[in-house]
Amino acid sequence: MTEPKLLPLLLTGVEAAATIAFALSGLIEAARRRLDAVGVCMVAGLAAFGGGTLRDVLLDRRPFFWVEHAAWLWVLLALCLVAMSVLRAQHFAPTERAMQWPDALGLGLFSATGTQLALAQGLPAIVAVLMGVITAVFGGVLRDIVCNQIPSAFSDHRPYAVCAFAGGWVLVGAQALALPDGWGLLSAAAVASGLRAAALLTGYQLPGWSSGQDNEG
Amino acid sequence: MTEPKLLPLLLTGVEAAATIAFALSGLIEAARRRLDAVGVCMVAGLAAFGGGTLRDVLLDRRPFFWVEHAAWLWVLLALCLVAMSVLRAQHFAPTERAMQWPDALGLGLFSATGTQLALAQGLPAIVAVLMGVITAVFGGVLRDIVCNQIPSAFSDHRPYAVCAFAGGWVLVGAQALALPDGWGLLSAAAVASGLRAAALLTGYQLPGWSSGQDNEG
Amino acid sequence: MTEPKLLPLLLTGVEAAATIAFALSGLIEAARRRLDAVGVCMVAGLAAFGGGTLRDVLLDRRPFFWVEHAAWLWVLLALCLVAMSVLRAQHFAPTERAMQWPDALGLGLFSATGTQLALAQGLPAIVAVLMGVITAVFGGVLRDIVCNQIPSAFSDHRPYAVCAFAGGWVLVGAQALALPDGWGLLSAAAVASGLRAAALLTGYQLPGWSSGQDNEG
Repeated sequence: MTEPKLLPLLLTGVEAAATIAFALSGLIEAARRRLDAVGVCMVAGLAAFGGGTLRDVLLDRRPFFWVEHAAWLWVLLALCLVAMSVLRAQHFAPTERAMQWPDALGLGLFSATGTQLALAQGLPAIVAVLMGVITAVFGGVLRDIVCNQIPSAFSDHRPYAVCAFAGGWVLVGAQALALPDGWGLLSAAAVASGLRAAALLTGYQLPGWSSGQDNEG
Repeated sequence: MTEPKLLPLLLTGVEAAATIAFALSGLIEAARRRLDAVGVCMVAGLAAFGGGTLRDVLLDRRPFFWVEHAAWLWVLLALCLVAMSVLRAQHFAPTERAMQWPDALGLGLFSATGTQLALAQGLPAIVAVLMGVITAVFGGVLRDIVCNQIPSAFSDHRPYAVCAFAGGWVLVGAQALALPDGWGLLSAAAVASGLRAAALLTGYQLPGWSSGQDNEG
Repeated sequence: MTEPKLLPLLLTGVEAAATIAFALSGLIEAARRRLDAVGVCMVAGLAAFGGGTLRDVLLDRRPFFWVEHAAWLWVLLALCLVAMSVLRAQHFAPTERAMQWPDALGLGLFSATGTQLALAQGLPAIVAVLMGVITAVFGGVLRDIVCNQIPSAFSDHRPYAVCAFAGGWVLVGAQALALPDGWGLLSAAAVASGLRAAALLTGYQLPGWSSGQDNEG
């Protein structure tokens, strides 16, 4: 009888860890680019909530996550203030390495839930999968745009959005097979997170533009 | 009896050619900035559909074009994958020159349809014309922002948005004169595309900031 | 009997002066970055109306200010055309200094009204205050993103968004104390504008990232 309560608790834990990992990615990027306290908080918030908010604007859904759970804005503010007083530049790289794993979990969870929300609105499969990708990836994209850099999700040749893309199709497949919702979500998230973890462990690189090979030839 | 069928077919053809021209502009820009495969697809999609999507968000219209015609997302994906395997860096400049003409047609078509959608919502003329400009121009603006560059539509001194602006006013005028919708749309698109083509052929430059003349004096 | 008429007139005057100050900030930034006439008008419009428009998209409110008061688009266009013919590069710095004061008034007014709109929708206090900040600050943020710079509101270490934040909380407090709406709005705007004016006069700097002190040590 414990399992029905354990799963939601686990999901909430993953969601919280991933949101903090996303926020820290924004916080560190903002610190690297020498933003001030306001910029650090804003970019951390954008990294944490930007993807889901953009998805909700596109799907015309309200309220946003951070409106319904406004306590998260206080958590984010506290996180930024604490980090600004304890985190030094030499901590950035180790923090980023530690955050890769909750971030990979978040990639799976957010792409699965984003895809599901879009499927529930009756959108075509490819659109729903894209919404999952936007949910998981565009927080980081907006973070990088505000920090005046080309989004790393679009340029670092490491699989990130493609893992979310693959996970989304798992959910579409699970719904087509009429599997229970929970199983579909879990397998989609597991595939996306697993692919991301495998990419991190193997150092696999996405193919770049083929003209890059021209230069080497 | 063929004309009533020919016109919609022609419009669909122009729309498809222009959308591909917009997508290729994003694809080439992304390749120039050394984005990876994910970035190339995302920026191509943003260039192709970003302007219409932003207009629809501002006008609170749903579904978006790429939701209603989701097959276009597959076309875009295929276009990117094919281009990444066949297009080399030395092809970029000739491709861009070839794409100027379908792009000019798209400028006319999208500014006219964007303006008409806004007029149909009862918006003021100046707002409707601006919506036409946004439809035609902001795909490229978003493309350039993501590629970490000042939007070329705002800085290259070649008439682009102003052609869309002029076309929009032609539509407003046609509606004020109670001309049939088809004629208004066609003349608006023709004026915008024609002005763009004339600008391309003559190399006309928009006035820049007058302080530029100070430096020369 | 004059006061009931004087206050709305005063507010309209402050709103107009602040909108022009915001637009001029965009215009000058666009000129500095060598944008063309189209870019100057677009960035000026984004600086003037971007914050309120983003707030309205997030709150799902229509019509936008510049749709309801479309005459402002003509004012903006005229402002840009006049400025492009009379403003020289050596005028930019003095113009910016003169605009600091209507800009500070706008910071107060727009953060107060943005917060109030969100409170009227029943949103949580922290969300409403954030909406006030977005209203007052994100026009400048979008201006800087389009001009390919890190937003100065996030990086110049001068209090701007925090003044709007403080003003928002004054309004929340005034509503909690059931003060009349007018008084709450006025005190919120006065606190935000007053803090900004004090920051301008004293040259107070926001704390930056603490690793900056590491480098000095």
